[in-house]
Amino acid sequence: MAQYQVTFLPDNIEITVEEGTNLLEAARNAGIELGSPCGGNGTCGKCAVRVTSGLYEAGNDFHLAEDSKTQGDTLSCTASVKGDLTVEIPEKSRMKKHKVVLSERQIKENSFLQQNGINPVGRKYHLMLTKPDLKDNMNDLDRVRKALRKEYGVTEATISLDGLRKLPEAIRLGNFEITITAIMVQGRCEIIGVEPGKMEKPVFGAAVDMGTTTVVVVLVDLDSGTILDQEGTYNKQATYGSDVISRIIYADENQDGLSTLKEAATDTVNELLKALLARNGLSAGDIISMVCGGNTVMTHLLLGVTPTYLRLEPYLPAAVTFPAVNAETLGIGIHPHAPVLTLPSVASYVGGDISAGVFAILPKNSDDLNLFIDIGTNGELVLGNSEWLVTCSCSAGPAFEGSGINCGMRAMDGAIDWIEIDPVNLEAGYRVINGGKPLGICGSGLIYSLSEMLEAGIIDRAGKIRLPAEVPGACRSRIRIGPEGAEYLLVPESESGTGRDIVITEGDIKNLLRAKGAIFAGIRTMLQQVQLDMSVISNVFIAGGFGKYINITDAVRIGLLPDLPEEKYEYVGNSCIQGAILGLLSLEALMEMDEIASKMTYLELSIGNQFMDEFISAVFIPHTDLSLFPSLQ
Amino acid sequence: MAQYQVTFLPDNIEITVEEGTNLLEAARNAGIELGSPCGGNGTCGKCAVRVTSGLYEAGNDFHLAEDSKTQGDTLSCTASVKGDLTVEIPEKSRMKKHKVVLSERQIKENSFLQQNGINPVGRKYHLMLTKPDLKDNMNDLDRVRKALRKEYGVTEATISLDGLRKLPEAIRLGNFEITITAIMVQGRCEIIGVEPGKMEKPVFGAAVDMGTTTVVVVLVDLDSGTILDQEGTYNKQATYGSDVISRIIYADENQDGLSTLKEAATDTVNELLKALLARNGLSAGDIISMVCGGNTVMTHLLLGVTPTYLRLEPYLPAAVTFPAVNAETLGIGIHPHAPVLTLPSVASYVGGDISAGVFAILPKNSDDLNLFIDIGTNGELVLGNSEWLVTCSCSAGPAFEGSGINCGMRAMDGAIDWIEIDPVNLEAGYRVINGGKPLGICGSGLIYSLSEMLEAGIIDRAGKIRLPAEVPGACRSRIRIGPEGAEYLLVPESESGTGRDIVITEGDIKNLLRAKGAIFAGIRTMLQQVQLDMSVISNVFIAGGFGKYINITDAVRIGLLPDLPEEKYEYVGNSCIQGAILGLLSLEALMEMDEIASKMTYLELSIGNQFMDEFISAVFIPHTDLSLFPSLQ
Repeated sequence: MAQYQVTFLPDNIEITVEEGTNLLEAARNAGIELGSPCGGNGTCGKCAVRVTSGLYEAGNDFHLAEDSKTQGDTLSCTASVKGDLTVEIPEKSRMKKHKVVLSERQIKENSFLQQNGINPVGRKYHLMLTKPDLKDNMNDLDRVRKALRKEYGVTEATISLDGLRKLPEAIRLGNFEITITAIMVQGRCEIIGVEPGKMEKPVFGAAVDMGTTTVVVVLVDLDSGTILDQEGTYNKQATYGSDVISRIIYADENQDGLSTLKEAATDTVNELLKALLARNGLSAGDIISMVCGGNTVMTHLLLGVTPTYLRLEPYLPAAVTFPAVNAETLGIGIHPHAPVLTLPSVASYVGGDISAGVFAILPKNSDDLNLFIDIGTNGELVLGNSEWLVTCSCSAGPAFEGSGINCGMRAMDGAIDWIEIDPVNLEAGYRVINGGKPLGICGSGLIYSLSEMLEAGIIDRAGKIRLPAEVPGACRSRIRIGPEGAEYLLVPESESGTGRDIVITEGDIKNLLRAKGAIFAGIRTMLQQVQLDMSVISNVFIAGGFGKYINITDAVRIGLLPDLPEEKYEYVGNSCIQGAILGLLSLEALMEMDEIASKMTYLELSIGNQFMDEFISAVFIPHTDLSLFPSLQ
Repeated sequence: MAQYQVTFLPDNIEITVEEGTNLLEAARNAGIELGSPCGGNGTCGKCAVRVTSGLYEAGNDFHLAEDSKTQGDTLSCTASVKGDLTVEIPEKSRMKKHKVVLSERQIKENSFLQQNGINPVGRKYHLMLTKPDLKDNMNDLDRVRKALRKEYGVTEATISLDGLRKLPEAIRLGNFEITITAIMVQGRCEIIGVEPGKMEKPVFGAAVDMGTTTVVVVLVDLDSGTILDQEGTYNKQATYGSDVISRIIYADENQDGLSTLKEAATDTVNELLKALLARNGLSAGDIISMVCGGNTVMTHLLLGVTPTYLRLEPYLPAAVTFPAVNAETLGIGIHPHAPVLTLPSVASYVGGDISAGVFAILPKNSDDLNLFIDIGTNGELVLGNSEWLVTCSCSAGPAFEGSGINCGMRAMDGAIDWIEIDPVNLEAGYRVINGGKPLGICGSGLIYSLSEMLEAGIIDRAGKIRLPAEVPGACRSRIRIGPEGAEYLLVPESESGTGRDIVITEGDIKNLLRAKGAIFAGIRTMLQQVQLDMSVISNVFIAGGFGKYINITDAVRIGLLPDLPEEKYEYVGNSCIQGAILGLLSLEALMEMDEIASKMTYLELSIGNQFMDEFISAVFIPHTDLSLFPSLQ
């Protein structure tokens, strides 16, 4: 087959591809990540590129924005190479580096760690061995075991083959003074490394939040429990689909789809690790354990286990507790014999990220009724106290992350995160994260937009946009009929950073209402299940990067969150990574998370009509039953 | 560097080697194994070859037999390639296939197995899983665990990553009927394989006797405990040295020496496995566990752990209990996730073969004082009862296996295993294993030779050969001065299969006396240690391939074995492989062997003068203290 050169601008990266390769794939091969929430299916319209010279075959451009079309853009996922090409990548199509938003809570101030002390998955032990002679001719390994027992109270240590191979030389080089690296797996101590003499350098663990959209790695000093550094980026799997369902479909329908996604996950983690190691002057072998929290699908994909049956009734995961895997076996760039532990899931759509979050955040030994809400790409809810826990996943979809919303985007530079609409002229004031011209609207901006549009009379409680004919002439330029029907013009193209109008369409509003309705209906269904009233909830913990930006008043006003006093609400940030860090530092924490995952009662919302009834009532602003929102009356 | 063709005859194998390659190595590269007990050091004179054309550089041929020299042979280990060559390999230089000599004892009649039942390291479980629905949406792994617990009482099963990856498909393909393969390692059940439906085929284990000279693999049906087949061959390490010390030196002094020896060991095992699998129509994955017994050095080398410090005072092994290793990691051709277990050593020179033998052979729950003797390439002794055990290694050296003996060879086709000398004309009658012309003398033949030569007055009690002048004229052709001094002509060249005289030199006799003296001195030293008299020994168990051929009367007559009634002696054959088989079939047996190894008291004979005094007294026929041999008086 013919081969052609494709040059990507402004990066000026040139690669050779076969005739017929699609441009999204070609860009990926060139190391350029384009936003592609639909997974390259031609339906999200986000991966526009501009071919400035050369022969290509355009495909279905139906979902490409009108202005993109007029500027000569084409959807990269549907266009294929037919000759040498020069392709420009518009800034708006590019995936952006993610800002990691970690909770301010100090891990070291965590009450569990304070009570239980640091007892990490892996550690170093400095040993002064007794010197042998003909009368004390105990073998090397038992000599090490004896010292471990005597100096540290560690009994029953085993050794990896690799460790055993290194042991004799290290002992003699160190003149019977050595430092060993040991991990605790399944209740037993395994020596995985030996070095001669006393090594002062500490050992490290990596805590991973394996999010559907974002992956965060935190480097933790296992000796002191100090957080050394952190790094986050987009999950490389995102180019194969923005949500877990589209990833499962990708895995099912593409040859080597599963291994492609597995590689994308490990590549993402490895890239972050590489950056962390380089920045801190460490080598891969210094990281001797990894604890990874993710939803059930992410965990399956990371381990290369098929998630197929998670998508088919009755929605079964292959497992909810996962084997500890050698880093080498999994292709993770840390100490080859370090264990990679994945936190236990509760069920198909309530994963290890939630077990981690609940452990890290919910008060222990308290009768308070707590509600834990994690709105990420999915929406998971947990209700309970220290005695019992109920959980559900309400498939809210990633609307609050900007997916399925015309001008939606994630909370990053350029995103509108606050909106105020003048009820007279319908013009909007807004705030852009880190200033500059706006590129789109993130989750919190979308919440404000709903509540402000309702307040200004642009939409009704069902989310319907008023007909332009019904508004005064001066405002007509803001409410109009666009290519997808009625829309509200938030930012005219002259002010926007994309050169296009930033609008909110009636379709966007429907998507947002469905997302917020699903979460509220989930909360209601759980409460009904345990026959408790919303008012008895003592605390509501809002987790996830998105949570940080939510304004509670507005979230209540649109009916996303229960109408409770604001002081009951607490933002807890990335609770998954907090749980993963605690797991790295404490074997007891890992056990507690196992306990939490196994004792949580999973509510399958698709059984019966209860959730659907609640959902239908909740797709209004704030709700069809206004008595649930007394403060709004 | 120039490259040349070397053609080996009569095999007609042609290979290309670099200029300067030595001929022993070239033969090895061509897949031709030459006997080379000295490890290619030019000192044993056994690797003679004949270059029939081409240019080569001969090295030190000092140790080459005279007749070999006259026939134009050269020592392959000291000769190097200087041009294209044709090389003939004399039959005498070639390593021969070994006949496996296994004990007749039926494993299934073993009292331990009868009492404890079969509880193997690995097994298959057939499971009918309950079918899931929305109300029973337990994940796949927990569904399997539940069935395992309910149907077989197995609790706490873990799964390998590979097993988990296969689980979801296998379950659906089998319509919720599956067969799992599980192993027991460190007290926990790990699922390593999953197949859809019911698999009727049993699973197998491989028991390995990793001898210094010979390696034996026995294929065992783990379901029924039946021995299916067995195969033995020379340890490929033998071309790098015939005994453990020369192997350690090889590992130390050659680049990649350790990994060369490790590969040789795994290659040997793999070759045997391949033959067994092919003959029995099995595939590698059908063998799901391996238990391996070997002396401490062999175990180190098999695992690729340096044995260096075993040779240097105070003679420390890296370990005496070894980690269970994945077959794949070790490069063993069975199920990749099968555990390879190596039996525990007692000390540097008392290995897992002895722990296995003692477990398999010594009566349990008996107050009898037992003596266990394993004369292989080394000589190990164990004394004790079911309460206590003392052991020592008496460095007898491999004289009884033919090493260090001019015309010595192992017990195989062509070996003289019985000798009778006419006291008048000094001519010998002899028996050849499997008939034909004799090629050399094996261990039992050597024992007969000593006792017959003494009886015929050819040697005195100190092993000195009578001067030819002292014997009648007719006998002078039998006693003569050869190139190495006085020698007895056992078989003239006209009768021999090698075309050379088969002789026993005074040097050979000295070596044999040292070997038998070391064993007897070891027995005496152990008895003195526990302050018991030889006469209280109830049973003497003779283990090892060599033991099978020993005639007790003659062994006592030369002072190799204690002067006890013949009914106290029992030949037990290859006790190491019996222990390994029991280990495969019974986790309890493995635990017992661990217990035996850890409770045995190791006597280091090099401490103090006791052993040396005993040894000096024992280098006579039968002994300087004739009161120890009342039946001979």
